[in-house]
Amino acid sequence: MRIRELSAEECVEILGRSDFGRLACARHDQPYIVPIHFSYDAERNCLYAFSSVGQKIQWMRENPKVCVEIEDVADKNHWTTVLVFGEYREIEDLPEQWAMRKRALELFQQRPEWWFPGAGRTDKREHSTMVVYRIRAERISGRRAARERLQGEAD
Amino acid sequence: MRIRELSAEECVEILGRSDFGRLACARHDQPYIVPIHFSYDAERNCLYAFSSVGQKIQWMRENPKVCVEIEDVADKNHWTTVLVFGEYREIEDLPEQWAMRKRALELFQQRPEWWFPGAGRTDKREHSTMVVYRIRAERISGRRAARERLQGEAD
Repeated sequence: MRIRELSAEECVEILGRSDFGRLACARHDQPYIVPIHFSYDAERNCLYAFSSVGQKIQWMRENPKVCVEIEDVADKNHWTTVLVFGEYREIEDLPEQWAMRKRALELFQQRPEWWFPGAGRTDKREHSTMVVYRIRAERISGRRAARERLQGEAD
Repeated sequence: MRIRELSAEECVEILGRSDFGRLACARHDQPYIVPIHFSYDAERNCLYAFSSVGQKIQWMRENPKVCVEIEDVADKNHWTTVLVFGEYREIEDLPEQWAMRKRALELFQQRPEWWFPGAGRTDKREHSTMVVYRIRAERISGRRAARERLQGEAD
């Protein structure tokens, strides 16, 4: 297996055509992973997403440092991952944040059935508030793996 | 979208037939996600995995609290996730740990091409040491989502 680092351009290109990944946040040194749908804004170098208020939002309000991972796995021997290290910020329904909120909502609406599953609910939080947030990308990296041919294997 | 919590039995059943997920570790409140292959040992309630020494191993040596996420996504409307919160422990090549190491290696070998991609390497760490470790599961939870039929939709 040969693994190579992706260039910044390659990472941005993958982010631009992705809308699904996993977000990790942490509280008191305990990490927590949750799948998210997002929209990448190349101009502002950030990811937009929305969610009802639950553990993930509560944890990110306490500690805004997050990591988002995007995968493109063809099979065990051919896969690409992109990592975004960044900071969580809520986009509130306030006049000074309307432009950003509008931008986020425009990007969300380019995704088919964009209101799933951020709008998903368990019985416990039937009427919870929806939070729109962004992850400001501070560092982006990526890796691509390809299996090397073994001696005797066909081309 | 209706989301329900899985029972402990359902989570264990999914873990038993999974060998791929994402691990999050954290250092100084910064989470980090990495895809891993693992083998679940129901008897000891732990996951076994191996890796060359890199950022993930270094971070887990500093802070052993981790989270592993397993997904089974049919489509945007039908998905299952299982989360394992647990503690990282290395299984060293010492007489008192040989039984556990043997058990881990036996489970690894039940996976096809089990030596990928834990044995993957970038040019930077051509000759690095391989670490065998386990995640002792402290808390396991899971969720399954299914889209509710909309009015007028066929059965």
